[in-house]
Amino acid sequence: MNIKKEILYKVNNKQLLIGVVGLGYVGLPLSVSFAQENNQVLGFDKSEEKIKKINSGENYIGDIQDDDLISVVNKGLLSASNDFSLIKKCDVLLICVPTPLDKFRKPDMSYIESACIEIGKNMKRGTFICLESTTYPTTTEHFMLPIIERESGFKHENDFWLAFSPERVDPGNKEYFTKNTPKVLGALTKDGLEIGEAIYKLAIENVHLVSSPRVAEMVKILENTYRLVNISLINELALLSGKMDINIWEVIEAAKTKPFGFQAFYPGPGVGGHCIPLDPFYLEHIAKKFNFDLTMINTAGHIDMLMAHRMTLKITSALNRHKKSINGSIILFLGVAYKPNINDERESPALKIIDEVINKGGNVRYHDPYISEIKTPENKQLKSIKLSPDSLKIFDCVVITTNHSEFDASFIERNSKMIVDLRNLIKVASNKVYKL
Amino acid sequence: MNIKKEILYKVNNKQLLIGVVGLGYVGLPLSVSFAQENNQVLGFDKSEEKIKKINSGENYIGDIQDDDLISVVNKGLLSASNDFSLIKKCDVLLICVPTPLDKFRKPDMSYIESACIEIGKNMKRGTFICLESTTYPTTTEHFMLPIIERESGFKHENDFWLAFSPERVDPGNKEYFTKNTPKVLGALTKDGLEIGEAIYKLAIENVHLVSSPRVAEMVKILENTYRLVNISLINELALLSGKMDINIWEVIEAAKTKPFGFQAFYPGPGVGGHCIPLDPFYLEHIAKKFNFDLTMINTAGHIDMLMAHRMTLKITSALNRHKKSINGSIILFLGVAYKPNINDERESPALKIIDEVINKGGNVRYHDPYISEIKTPENKQLKSIKLSPDSLKIFDCVVITTNHSEFDASFIERNSKMIVDLRNLIKVASNKVYKL
Repeated sequence: MNIKKEILYKVNNKQLLIGVVGLGYVGLPLSVSFAQENNQVLGFDKSEEKIKKINSGENYIGDIQDDDLISVVNKGLLSASNDFSLIKKCDVLLICVPTPLDKFRKPDMSYIESACIEIGKNMKRGTFICLESTTYPTTTEHFMLPIIERESGFKHENDFWLAFSPERVDPGNKEYFTKNTPKVLGALTKDGLEIGEAIYKLAIENVHLVSSPRVAEMVKILENTYRLVNISLINELALLSGKMDINIWEVIEAAKTKPFGFQAFYPGPGVGGHCIPLDPFYLEHIAKKFNFDLTMINTAGHIDMLMAHRMTLKITSALNRHKKSINGSIILFLGVAYKPNINDERESPALKIIDEVINKGGNVRYHDPYISEIKTPENKQLKSIKLSPDSLKIFDCVVITTNHSEFDASFIERNSKMIVDLRNLIKVASNKVYKL
Repeated sequence: MNIKKEILYKVNNKQLLIGVVGLGYVGLPLSVSFAQENNQVLGFDKSEEKIKKINSGENYIGDIQDDDLISVVNKGLLSASNDFSLIKKCDVLLICVPTPLDKFRKPDMSYIESACIEIGKNMKRGTFICLESTTYPTTTEHFMLPIIERESGFKHENDFWLAFSPERVDPGNKEYFTKNTPKVLGALTKDGLEIGEAIYKLAIENVHLVSSPRVAEMVKILENTYRLVNISLINELALLSGKMDINIWEVIEAAKTKPFGFQAFYPGPGVGGHCIPLDPFYLEHIAKKFNFDLTMINTAGHIDMLMAHRMTLKITSALNRHKKSINGSIILFLGVAYKPNINDERESPALKIIDEVINKGGNVRYHDPYISEIKTPENKQLKSIKLSPDSLKIFDCVVITTNHSEFDASFIERNSKMIVDLRNLIKVASNKVYKL
């Protein structure tokens, strides 16, 4: 039996061993989804803590139901390991490693590189390999393929298949999760595409095929660039509206009554999380190689880079009306997660504002029902405090940086001296409230 | 009876005389909508030709059914005049005049100014006045109000009411038209808002009230700035994709499978029409007064300003592969309307490309089933030619600038030597076709 027939036979008879490399907010939900459909899944990660937790059925990802993880672990369908030599047992390898930016906002490809080296060294002939991490177009063909071929001695199409299928995880989304979010897939060859489609269909309802990995890579970047650009646009319009005595939130609600050709975005202290602040800059990076300057992404990045500073100025202006300065004031931040109802503070603008306010002499506390302690980009460590009417009253200024559902607007409005509301949480008119 | 009670009585008893100033693609459909609900409408325009046409029941606006116009004219519900002294008979004045940009891309407020002067000179006490033309926030309060009060000697709220309600006409839209497109309304005072709502509800299903005219002014600018920015973004990504051997149209189709947080925009030779290329620059203009630089609009404008030139370069590159130059080639443009299935070529990028190609020595013809003759920005006059297999064959290059439904992709592909397809009309793979 040739390798293509063999892998398709295993797909059809649920005999695959699916290896998932990287067990974070993408890899673990993906692993659970495959295991729930009675496929054997082996997760790989360098973190011993994650391995231990998974193998003991302890969930650490908000989008996964604890019972779902326990169930597939107890049935022996999902296990985890940091022994990458076990890659040789896998028929499928799905790579879900981080693709961060370094301190100079350039792509950090080291995680993909390291995964490709481990895979190349250990893989068996006949493996289907697919990258899910967001990256610049041409990564699969020009970055991954040479490493895997070099390390393995195998030849693509003769010995293995390589593809790209972007993750579309939206943390906290209660309607769309791994199984029912359509998956875009592009492979280097026709066989790779056919095999990849068959594999993903084991766990995902709709697979949308495209003509190449670079098209699939571009799809994810387009989706998130669209968001960065539109958030930056509305943030810039919000800042102007503040000067023009226009309530931007009211403008957006009214614009939403247009039944065609408009999608609402909301202002805030800046973009956060692992996707929107990062992904567009992967494209900007590769564009340079093609002598191309992506002016829209550039401009959106500039706006976003200044948002934390501008929000600090809002706090300064608000305190100034009470004849106070940041220096010496005691200031509470409500919410440090980058979006509502999740426990993730990566790239959260709240942390940057906290750093700046501390640097200006502010005495900062925070409260977040989802995040009990934080370390800011400048390594300040803080613990979430409890909220009570008495505790709120002591603050010179309360800054609303995340609109968690738990936050009781009227309680906060009633018990605070002054509020800088960057999320339109306080809907009633109040002379205590300074809005973005 | 006081003036408020009087006008509301007339609303409720359909005794209003509604004056509409400006009988273009906004004012005429609005006039017909009010007249269809048995309100008496008197249209004003400086163009004798338009007046004559309306009074003889001759329709000149694509979004109006000929029968609808004839019917309201024959019933005596709608008539038109260029005698602005008749303004004194009107209870309501809805201003739908152009707000273009001048040659230096600055707002041309002369039409609004002229309308306000005519209204101020002629209006009676107790009139409700509303501007529908897109303009920068604060226009109603700071530009219109002083002119009307000065010219009339009346005082706002005591003698008349002023409001702003942006038109949302989308030419060619078969689903949403005047009646069923929700209308945003902001007035200077509470009474003005109440009266305005009652009036608009005579003809429009949903009226969304906002707290001030400037909020309503900003709503329209947000809606169209959103479109300019997103079209410019996708145009820039399309140009990069061309260099990276990525089919941007395939990328967009795949991104559309994301069931949340994405709205598709399509690339093309640049934005056109009376709204999207203009409206954002009204905001940019007023922002300067507030020491504010709108970098997103600026950048989007830059991209758009260069699109026609870049499309000319695409034509040059395509001809170059056939060892031809623009100079001396005979080139056909298919479609000069700024969007499909309408007869409007205002601000159409096709015209700018035609100018540039002619300037470079190209021998240009065009075909558009909706537009029989054109005058380009540089005053070149051309007439639409007929299409046949033989006529197509003579052209060195066929450029698809508008994707009218009438265009038969396979007929064009079959009979053309070479095609530069700026609208993704030709879906089949073909080595004759060069795509944006």
